Amino acid sequence: MNTSVWQHRHVLDLDDFTPAEIELVFNLTDTMRKVMSHQIERLSTLRDKTVVNLFYESSTRTRVSFELAAKNLGANVVNISTSASSVTKGESLIDTLSTLEALGANIVIMRHPQSGAPYIAAKYVKASILNGGDGWHAHPTQALLDLYTIRKHKGKLKGLKAAIIGDILHSRVARSNIWGLTTMGVEVTLCGPPTLMPGNLNKSHHLPQVSTEHDIGTALDGADVVMMLRLQLERQQSGLLPTIREYIQLYQLTEQRLAKAKPDALVLHPGPMNEGIEISPAVAHGPQSVINEQVTNGVAVRMALLYLLGRSKE
Amino acid sequence: MNTSVWQHRHVLDLDDFTPAEIELVFNLTDTMRKVMSHQIERLSTLRDKTVVNLFYESSTRTRVSFELAAKNLGANVVNISTSASSVTKGESLIDTLSTLEALGANIVIMRHPQSGAPYIAAKYVKASILNGGDGWHAHPTQALLDLYTIRKHKGKLKGLKAAIIGDILHSRVARSNIWGLTTMGVEVTLCGPPTLMPGNLNKSHHLPQVSTEHDIGTALDGADVVMMLRLQLERQQSGLLPTIREYIQLYQLTEQRLAKAKPDALVLHPGPMNEGIEISPAVAHGPQSVINEQVTNGVAVRMALLYLLGRSKE
Amino acid sequence: MNTSVWQHRHVLDLDDFTPAEIELVFNLTDTMRKVMSHQIERLSTLRDKTVVNLFYESSTRTRVSFELAAKNLGANVVNISTSASSVTKGESLIDTLSTLEALGANIVIMRHPQSGAPYIAAKYVKASILNGGDGWHAHPTQALLDLYTIRKHKGKLKGLKAAIIGDILHSRVARSNIWGLTTMGVEVTLCGPPTLMPGNLNKSHHLPQVSTEHDIGTALDGADVVMMLRLQLERQQSGLLPTIREYIQLYQLTEQRLAKAKPDALVLHPGPMNEGIEISPAVAHGPQSVINEQVTNGVAVRMALLYLLGRSKE
Repeated sequence: MNTSVWQHRHVLDLDDFTPAEIELVFNLTDTMRKVMSHQIERLSTLRDKTVVNLFYESSTRTRVSFELAAKNLGANVVNISTSASSVTKGESLIDTLSTLEALGANIVIMRHPQSGAPYIAAKYVKASILNGGDGWHAHPTQALLDLYTIRKHKGKLKGLKAAIIGDILHSRVARSNIWGLTTMGVEVTLCGPPTLMPGNLNKSHHLPQVSTEHDIGTALDGADVVMMLRLQLERQQSGLLPTIREYIQLYQLTEQRLAKAKPDALVLHPGPMNEGIEISPAVAHGPQSVINEQVTNGVAVRMALLYLLGRSKE
Repeated sequence: MNTSVWQHRHVLDLDDFTPAEIELVFNLTDTMRKVMSHQIERLSTLRDKTVVNLFYESSTRTRVSFELAAKNLGANVVNISTSASSVTKGESLIDTLSTLEALGANIVIMRHPQSGAPYIAAKYVKASILNGGDGWHAHPTQALLDLYTIRKHKGKLKGLKAAIIGDILHSRVARSNIWGLTTMGVEVTLCGPPTLMPGNLNKSHHLPQVSTEHDIGTALDGADVVMMLRLQLERQQSGLLPTIREYIQLYQLTEQRLAKAKPDALVLHPGPMNEGIEISPAVAHGPQSVINEQVTNGVAVRMALLYLLGRSKE
Repeated sequence: MNTSVWQHRHVLDLDDFTPAEIELVFNLTDTMRKVMSHQIERLSTLRDKTVVNLFYESSTRTRVSFELAAKNLGANVVNISTSASSVTKGESLIDTLSTLEALGANIVIMRHPQSGAPYIAAKYVKASILNGGDGWHAHPTQALLDLYTIRKHKGKLKGLKAAIIGDILHSRVARSNIWGLTTMGVEVTLCGPPTLMPGNLNKSHHLPQVSTEHDIGTALDGADVVMMLRLQLERQQSGLLPTIREYIQLYQLTEQRLAKAKPDALVLHPGPMNEGIEISPAVAHGPQSVINEQVTNGVAVRMALLYLLGRSKE
């Protein structure tokens, strides 16, 4: 496979990805799916590489997804989670990273509660940084797996209409998807309660393909893709949500509401779901849901990215 | 080896194991012991398999035993413990399991505080479920390693007399052993304080080979095998035990008491022991104790089961 | 390589290492550095060995260093940390160790808050014990990596002058370095506040090459090597330190103070550093600092020791 279009030493967000790079990730992900289902023999591309899962926020599913992706490629994998970390001893992020690099880390997968932390990391270390989610800012592997899942079902991305529904304001998943979807020619409608929407997102980012909408019916109208976001239940304590019951009434994706989208519209969710809150169980497990497939594609997309980052270091 | 008698897609308890299946596990365990001692080359039967250790209760020894068993067979192993798990985000067991399956898990080893949880799991997922202990209900790998250890020393199981002593009521180890021992023709006497005994165990289960006894001397009389159970010290708080001191006086396995069993009777304990409580240090480390050997056999039995489950999925 | 000078079944401290053994570790470490930088193919010396990281004190950097060292040699590695350990169930250290041995552990890397714990361990088990730090007593792998780093830069050890500065009293790093440095012919000056100095170290140990000094300027005078120790900030609560500010004024390694040492003096620190407390950021990241290199050499030294222990068991 011609990987010469790949220019990244780190994967921090999708705002600097070209369509050709995203297509390359898709093609490699196709291959990785075949490796996962044993149609192709396991690769040992990362056999001499050390991959560190550095998680300052706990997330079993994302950690396991990256861990398996790296192990599927033969890497040495080390897990570090905050509770076990010497972070508690007051060491700075940069010190931790340069220690990991000195220990032999080639790729550091990093999840951090502070927006922008992986950018600081990328400035100071020679290891490749793979952003596994930073604050409200970005979650590029989630967006790539979403894009891949949509393309696999629709055969294309260009010209599709996607609705992203929920707490847009605090969502790194939404942010990275906006970059990825618009780069690939998808029209995006963001929808959620006014208190959970970024005021001037389309203006400040100059993204003509992105519109905002408060009414879920209007947002879903004619959509090819419906991306639901997880509602952080603690938003209510912070006064940004009146009640969970009202949120359910206005924004839960039910079968009735989903009927406003195209008949073959896909339903995505980054997980873990609050079933019965942002999504009804019937939709979550219904025929249009590709939520479990997203999980599988997540491993394959991460394998593709680790493969590319592992090679780019040689 | 002829593995055609093996009919299990999951290992949940021993109540549905045939003697032929148990014999198969014994034979494979013999082989695995040779692998462990490097008399036979390491197998890579599970080289393309992903095994998840999903522990909702912490237990270092059991987790490590399964982890090494899976690694000894070349599997990718991922550990998930409750503290690190997104379980805390309120995800249901079924959602967690279908996520693990979508991530590529072939075999999920599951320890759960709720009796019956692995049965629910087995209904909903395609991955094999291997019960690593559920509530008070079952602990089939412990029972198989106990059976294997006894057979190795006695050369047979049929016709032996076993006494199981301690908190029978709350013991998944006792329950699974009752199934396994009676299936293999062992006569079982259960012995413990009245408050820690199941009232109608032999009646409700129609097991003519099982009798109950409150006096430890009578229970030990003529026994070939003495299986001690760990006393959960918190039972006292719940009012089920008068005092630890009384328990020690009435039920501790001492050298004096052990003398009532056959001279070559074996002493087993699932660990970790409360030395000085349910068992005296002299007996725990005495010539009749096979407690350390149980630990080694545990790895080998688990290798055998993982081998069988890994093959049954092909 | 001729490894016949190696006589250790365990590595507990450096007080019983001969110069020839230390030289052997250096030579093997040179090889391991080449393995790490892919100049030599990865060894699979420990392919059939199981290495357990048994940490009763949390330390991410040391745990990861040992974990990568063992994985670089192809071992099965299992991590056990106190929080996850059945230690909480009241099992004794010896019971835990004999369980690990029965599970198949060949080498147990042990970090323990109690001085002397690895010595007790080594008496009772057949597995090799590798001391990863015990209480205030010893940290032999840290000392060996320090010695290796110094020799790599200076080309020799004999005849050099080293100053060890900080909380000598509570430092296992200092203690093991004293044994290693003096064995290799280095002259050692210990320097720190009177309350953090062992009163009669040189007398009780009969080490003519070791002197003590309270004034940092005098200690640094003419030094080839400056080894800084981490200040445990909790020492202040225990009344052993007047104030952190005073400690900084009297004992922080600044550029100005470092100028009193030889112009090419090396600066070492076992990490994690309290930058701005025992060491100024300018010195920590300055041209004389070899602190990051220590981390890399730590992995290589640990590979060398695991290699030797893995072979000594055959």
